[in-house]
Amino acid sequence: MSLPVFGADIIRNAATPRLILDTVRDALIAHAEGRTSVPLPLAMEFPDADGDCHVKAGQIAGAPDFSIKIATSFYRNPALGLPSNHGLICVVSAKTGQIRAVLDDRGLLTAVRTAACGALVTHAMARPGAGTLGVFGTGEQARLQALWLSRLRPLSRVLVHGRTSETSRAACDWLIAHHHLPARPATARETAEADIVVTTTPATRPILDAAHVREGAHVTGIGTDMPHKNELPAALFGRAGLIATDDHEQCVDHGDFGHAVRSGTTTVDSDVPAGLLLKTPAARPDDAITVADLTGVGAVDAALASAVLGLLWEGEAAAGTTG
Amino acid sequence: MSLPVFGADIIRNAATPRLILDTVRDALIAHAEGRTSVPLPLAMEFPDADGDCHVKAGQIAGAPDFSIKIATSFYRNPALGLPSNHGLICVVSAKTGQIRAVLDDRGLLTAVRTAACGALVTHAMARPGAGTLGVFGTGEQARLQALWLSRLRPLSRVLVHGRTSETSRAACDWLIAHHHLPARPATARETAEADIVVTTTPATRPILDAAHVREGAHVTGIGTDMPHKNELPAALFGRAGLIATDDHEQCVDHGDFGHAVRSGTTTVDSDVPAGLLLKTPAARPDDAITVADLTGVGAVDAALASAVLGLLWEGEAAAGTTG
Repeated sequence: MSLPVFGADIIRNAATPRLILDTVRDALIAHAEGRTSVPLPLAMEFPDADGDCHVKAGQIAGAPDFSIKIATSFYRNPALGLPSNHGLICVVSAKTGQIRAVLDDRGLLTAVRTAACGALVTHAMARPGAGTLGVFGTGEQARLQALWLSRLRPLSRVLVHGRTSETSRAACDWLIAHHHLPARPATARETAEADIVVTTTPATRPILDAAHVREGAHVTGIGTDMPHKNELPAALFGRAGLIATDDHEQCVDHGDFGHAVRSGTTTVDSDVPAGLLLKTPAARPDDAITVADLTGVGAVDAALASAVLGLLWEGEAAAGTTG
Repeated sequence: MSLPVFGADIIRNAATPRLILDTVRDALIAHAEGRTSVPLPLAMEFPDADGDCHVKAGQIAGAPDFSIKIATSFYRNPALGLPSNHGLICVVSAKTGQIRAVLDDRGLLTAVRTAACGALVTHAMARPGAGTLGVFGTGEQARLQALWLSRLRPLSRVLVHGRTSETSRAACDWLIAHHHLPARPATARETAEADIVVTTTPATRPILDAAHVREGAHVTGIGTDMPHKNELPAALFGRAGLIATDDHEQCVDHGDFGHAVRSGTTTVDSDVPAGLLLKTPAARPDDAITVADLTGVGAVDAALASAVLGLLWEGEAAAGTTG
């Protein structure tokens, strides 16, 4: 039998926001409760091309499949007319090791699960009434974080801070035109002063000043996925009343939380699993700063890939195209 | 453009023994000389199914591609009528991160590169006149190690020791029927007393007695690819006059060499890169025992996948099937 390969268009149609949010939430909870198996990711860097590649694997305990995901980010691609992100997911039988299918999603599921993880955790940790969002970064994830959070709570204002006013403007135009979100470019300080702050950059030095973050605000870091990357200042973790990580070991190894731990502003036991907050929201004093460090969990990829593949096979069976 | 996927049959036709040996030799030398980039592999275990999965990545310095290989081994598969090994290789552009092709080789290239690595290193390290081979294990790799070594030097006798006489007999029958090799089942002691010994099992405890290995013999360990696996006894490394590893860091982390280092029978700086011995064979006293610990190098996979893909694309261009 030849290897079943499903393309990005059919995957995009199958992966509805409802399916994604439900699957990602359940997987983050399973991961927090220790019901997953996730080896440390494999990472490669290509400094000559300003690129990197991550391979993440994971399994939800007892699931018949596991998945292995290849994700590349090459930051000069837009100048070549190519998207920055690419990748695919292999869904593998946990009973026999046979590769059941390749989801040739070109990074689509990584993008939406990252957006969904960020939105779910941010929504669970931010004050209920918080409505202004500050986004650092202007790429795909910057836009998706704003979009997906707007699916969970109303946003009264979206402030976007990028490296240039042109890229900030372009991100705002996209959010306004496609999703009617009240977005405008802003300074780093204005952006850091929002009720909710999300960082989505490949920065290697902190991109916001901890002193600008207001009491009662929530900050989610999305972009730090290798040891040399760093978006959130260590001092921010020092001020936080609640710190959540999507995977403790990964965040210590290559997340912003690890930088803060090594700098001494917080301790290695100061975080709680983000998934637990999705199940039972933590009580938060109104004036506390809360921080989430998300490095991306392979078990979430596995759960989403399995859910999508299940739908695709149902669709094929219904259409009579499977043997 | 849809993802190009090449199947096992077309790959088998393209990957001739000559291409494989030349490519693997060059890649092992490049790796020994530091001209490769190889992150630590990602490993998962599935104890309920007696299975494991390894993901290896690698790049030859300056090559336009890198590769990521998924390889699974599920040892109960034969009882289900399935091969133990499965897998695929993704060839990825090192300039843009775009996935150029999937080699749906079902583990074929892993099997032959492992066989070629073993044969090349064994041939380089064994005494020139050594002609008796003892093989521990009866699976695909046991057979391929004997076959590929026979392509590099004449073998006067192949002794095979497996867990049961039936599996040993079956492996010998295959070697005799398909490749006219003088194979016969043997006891563990007889097998360990051969001029050349190769171990190809998923054992978790040493499978041969160091005292049975003769002076002047060479031993290559193939099967130890996770920290809990162990084929070669630590005492063997203590007796060795020359130790080679295909990747120092991997062999310390999860090879037989690491077990020996931790047990104190040898030191962490006692090995030489196996690739260097392919370029310039080391002088060996006739009565020295030599040992090679091979854990499998991602850069070898990358080089072989690129070479095969290049041929496949040439073939497609010649046939006028590429746009």
